[in-house]
Amino acid sequence: MGASLAGALRGKCEAIVGVARRHETIESATARALVDEATLDLEQGLAAAHVVVLAVPVRTILSLLDEIGPLLTDGCLILDLGSTKAQIAAKMAQLPGHVQPLGGHPMCGKEVSGIDAAEPAIFHGATFVLTPLSRTSERALALGSELVTTLGSRPLILEARRHDHLVAMISHLPYLLSCALVSATAQEAQEDSAVWDVAASGYRDSSRLASSDVTMMLDILLTNRDAVLDALSAWRSQMRNLADLVEAADESGLRAALTTIRTNRADTADHHVGFPV
Amino acid sequence: MGASLAGALRGKCEAIVGVARRHETIESATARALVDEATLDLEQGLAAAHVVVLAVPVRTILSLLDEIGPLLTDGCLILDLGSTKAQIAAKMAQLPGHVQPLGGHPMCGKEVSGIDAAEPAIFHGATFVLTPLSRTSERALALGSELVTTLGSRPLILEARRHDHLVAMISHLPYLLSCALVSATAQEAQEDSAVWDVAASGYRDSSRLASSDVTMMLDILLTNRDAVLDALSAWRSQMRNLADLVEAADESGLRAALTTIRTNRADTADHHVGFPV
Repeated sequence: MGASLAGALRGKCEAIVGVARRHETIESATARALVDEATLDLEQGLAAAHVVVLAVPVRTILSLLDEIGPLLTDGCLILDLGSTKAQIAAKMAQLPGHVQPLGGHPMCGKEVSGIDAAEPAIFHGATFVLTPLSRTSERALALGSELVTTLGSRPLILEARRHDHLVAMISHLPYLLSCALVSATAQEAQEDSAVWDVAASGYRDSSRLASSDVTMMLDILLTNRDAVLDALSAWRSQMRNLADLVEAADESGLRAALTTIRTNRADTADHHVGFPV
Repeated sequence: MGASLAGALRGKCEAIVGVARRHETIESATARALVDEATLDLEQGLAAAHVVVLAVPVRTILSLLDEIGPLLTDGCLILDLGSTKAQIAAKMAQLPGHVQPLGGHPMCGKEVSGIDAAEPAIFHGATFVLTPLSRTSERALALGSELVTTLGSRPLILEARRHDHLVAMISHLPYLLSCALVSATAQEAQEDSAVWDVAASGYRDSSRLASSDVTMMLDILLTNRDAVLDALSAWRSQMRNLADLVEAADESGLRAALTTIRTNRADTADHHVGFPV
């Protein structure tokens, strides 16, 4: 995500400086012309930055926020791309007063990660959530919004806890549903391996999120635990309704429920550009 | 599916005769050159057919099998494309002795249906399950297999009940998971409609099956009820394991489980050509 963002902003600001932990990442970023400069040295990378973007898993962002404050320039906008926002917002609130913190979450992830998966166009047409703190100035929020629109995304300003509650339903829960599906299929495959032979595009899409980066997802689940369990609980009650209708072979009830669901999805796709069918 | 199959076989057999219930379907099929001839009259359509393919929802197949026997030519191969096979096999067993019944299920559905969604290339590289009855001759099975390979698909011969058990896991269960997800999201949207604004490609894929044709899915769920409920029960126990790990914030247990799942899916994609990631 960081590499995609660097590529998308390159040439649209004074300079893009990449900071990485591994030399190979720097080489790839340079070879792919995603950055103007790149370094392994965090202090050096931050020394002249007006805007700093943290594009690492959530708990790595939390550790970075513990140490990064004194290294930031006066008035620096510090934006993160973490997938959960409440714990990050709490940590950002403790940053020194000379910096401007702003939470961010571009809603355009892929299940593949790493610099080789970088795709600057991924931001086009996407929703990009911004979660300002009470201390975030209007000017800093305006700069963050300008960065988002420069990427081709639509800024959506939400309070951090509200963001976390909503993405638990539309992102973290689907990940768990998908993982349990692969897990149940793998168990079935121990009895009859032909189960994989009959899997096709429907299964591929339903199981795709189970291929997400584990460290990223672990950080998400552990920093948004209550909201994830709430979403699962809400989902379970809907599943129970459907399972009861199937069990009772209640044809008219099942048809009504499935028709409402199908219509809900179609209407949503019509009215929410970020959700193309 | 029937229109896609007609288009894929056109020019590769003596003639393709389409039988439809609505005049508009015949006009579309003719305009799109999917058939050589088309008729609204079932008896006329079947009069000279060496091979008959039933491409309608499962319970419509069951009714057709009640009436179609006497209309079929001597030695006619009767193949269906229904998504569940056990009830169809039981009904096919009652067909008159002069015909050769064979169950079929191409594993390449789309969530859109109707003749305008016809796509003859959809069969390329797909698994196409064939479920012969004990009365199906070797010659009839060979003809069915030849039809499948002519489409560009790979025949996979399975007993009908085994097929139904396997597709409950990889197709019917994912449909229900997806429906419950859309249902839970719609309920959440009544409290906070921004939930749809943060939905992106992960949600789109996880919810795609909820847009499947309701009549088709209703027939599937009602003719494969026990296997669907068994698959749901197996899935629930996997979900419970994952939810317990999240609830306990058991980082190492959760990492191990999610890593195994991710590896399972990747290994499967490597070894099963019908399941590209």
